[in-house]
Formats: sequence, C-alpha cells, structure tokens
Amino acid sequence: MMSVWVGSGHLPSDLRWSPVVYGESRVMERRIDVITLAVHDLERALAFYRDGLGFETRGITATEFAGDETHAAGAVVMFRLDSGLTLALYPRSELAKDSGSAEAPTQSGAFSLGQIVANRSDVDTLLAKAEAAGATVTDKPHDRPWGIYSGYFRDPDGHLWEIIHSPK
Amino acid sequence: MMSVWVGSGHLPSDLRWSPVVYGESRVMERRIDVITLAVHDLERALAFYRDGLGFETRGITATEFAGDETHAAGAVVMFRLDSGLTLALYPRSELAKDSGSAEAPTQSGAFSLGQIVANRSDVDTLLAKAEAAGATVTDKPHDRPWGIYSGYFRDPDGHLWEIIHSPK
Repeated sequence: MMSVWVGSGHLPSDLRWSPVVYGESRVMERRIDVITLAVHDLERALAFYRDGLGFETRGITATEFAGDETHAAGAVVMFRLDSGLTLALYPRSELAKDSGSAEAPTQSGAFSLGQIVANRSDVDTLLAKAEAAGATVTDKPHDRPWGIYSGYFRDPDGHLWEIIHSPK
Repeated sequence: MMSVWVGSGHLPSDLRWSPVVYGESRVMERRIDVITLAVHDLERALAFYRDGLGFETRGITATEFAGDETHAAGAVVMFRLDSGLTLALYPRSELAKDSGSAEAPTQSGAFSLGQIVANRSDVDTLLAKAEAAGATVTDKPHDRPWGIYSGYFRDPDGHLWEIIHSPK
C-alpha cells in the first residue's frame, strides 16, 4: 500500500479544503457529510429523535421512490445538525439493498456517536431525557481515567450515544 | 412520551447554538462531535484511514490508560475532520467495556458514513482508491432514482462508506 500523508502543515492553505491531488493519487477529503443509521421501524426512530430528543426534521421524505425486492426505496428521515452534518434514519432493509450488504440485525457496539456538553450536570440530564424517550442507558455517567465524565445510552435500534463532559 | 419540537424558527437566535431549555425539559443539541468506529485491529484500521485514505492523525494515543478485564483501555486513534468533527477508531473490546455493551462482531449494515464530492468522476476515483487501500466495494457507482450518483465500500472492519455526487 502506498503511503500518502496529507498533514495540513505540509500543504499550502488553499489546498486544505479541496480534494487533494498528490502525484497521481486523489486522496479523500477529511470530511463526513452524512451519518445514516439503519433502523427497524422508521416511524419509531423518527419519534425517538424528533419528539424524544428534540431534533428538527421535515419528517419522512422521499416516499415517492417505492423500491422493490432488489432496489432500495427512498423513504428517509433527515436531520440537519448545527455543524452542517446530516443525520439520516433509513430502514435496515433499504440500506442493505442500497449498499449491497446483508441486512443488519439490531446490535450495539459497532460504533458510537458522541456529543460533548458544557456542564457535568448536562450529562445526567440528557441521559435521563433519552431514557424517558425510550433509550436504554447502558453505562451510567461516571468519571473515566482519561479525564472525562460521560455515560452511554442506546437508541431503540441499539445505536450507541455517549454524552461527554470534558473539563479540559 | 412528551413531544418537544425545537425548530430554529420557533426560538430566538441566541438560543439556537446553546442547550435549549423548554419548560422543565432540556433538549439535546442538534450536534454530533465524535463518531467512534469499533475496530478489530487498531493498527490495521489506522493504516487504512491514514495511509490508505489520507486522513491526518497523531496516530495511536492514550496508551497510558491500560485498562483491564472490566475497565476500558484508552488507546485510540483520532482524526480531526475539516468540519470540526472527530472520527475515532477504538478497539471493539474496549468500546464494549466502555459502553457496557456486548462486543460487536465484524458486520456491515448498521450505519453508513457519507461523503459528498464535487464531481461524478470523484466517486469512481475515491472508490478505486479505497479498494486499493484494502476496502471492499459492495456496490459499484451508479445513478440512483433520487438523483444521485454513488457507490459504497466497506472498510476492513465492515463499516460502510457511501461516496456521493449530487448534481443538485
């Protein structure tokens, strides 16, 4: 494997925000625009994130793309987050078809999404809020050796969130 | 479940970027700060993302937190992305301990990460690049009914990425 290191210190500043061409080799931008969570029940997941956690969305869209046994349907929920990132909810069956993968069972542990909050007490408050909305708290808030105070919940589909307060 | 809707149109602008208190109920901010991918082999995952895809990192850090059978170790790889988002790689065994979850097997389909690129040809180029770095292309680039051109790969741990060009 060819080693291509794109440290921003090695590049003129006008290259830092565009796809980088390094010799013959185009390197991926250091960017994620969309996180799509596979869900079992789109309505349930929508209710959890919109009504339970307070995320803003137009609701289920793209229902005009019906799909079939081999082609993914379009129905999706999208939340535009404050950073410009999009959090999408998409049925597991459709992500499987769209990506050419097997349909994933409900499961935790493949990844987690983290939110950093301003105060220690926010960690407790948000975990309680998520639990009231139907989440399962898998690890109650506590101090961790690396200097953070955090706790984990999993959403109704098993996707993990860590709510983090870092005094540093 | 109590319904709490926090549309930015309903709030004064100075509340939009801070945790929102709505009556007695604090709502989560619409923000993700960290995406942590659980990996089987931290060195292999580091090589894929740093050397293969060209993401910038200080390498494996926090190795001073050794962990044990019940407590998670600290060793982690972090990539600071251009939006301010952090992409972290963390051993599956340690995420399981840290989050109070069962260790996840290698699997695809629970979620996907999407990157939107400027040109149609970038989709082909980046998928070829990822494949050369050890990824598996699960769905070759093609036009999808909702007006995008995209393809999927999975990283060495099975995590899905979709590279997307949207003419709109």
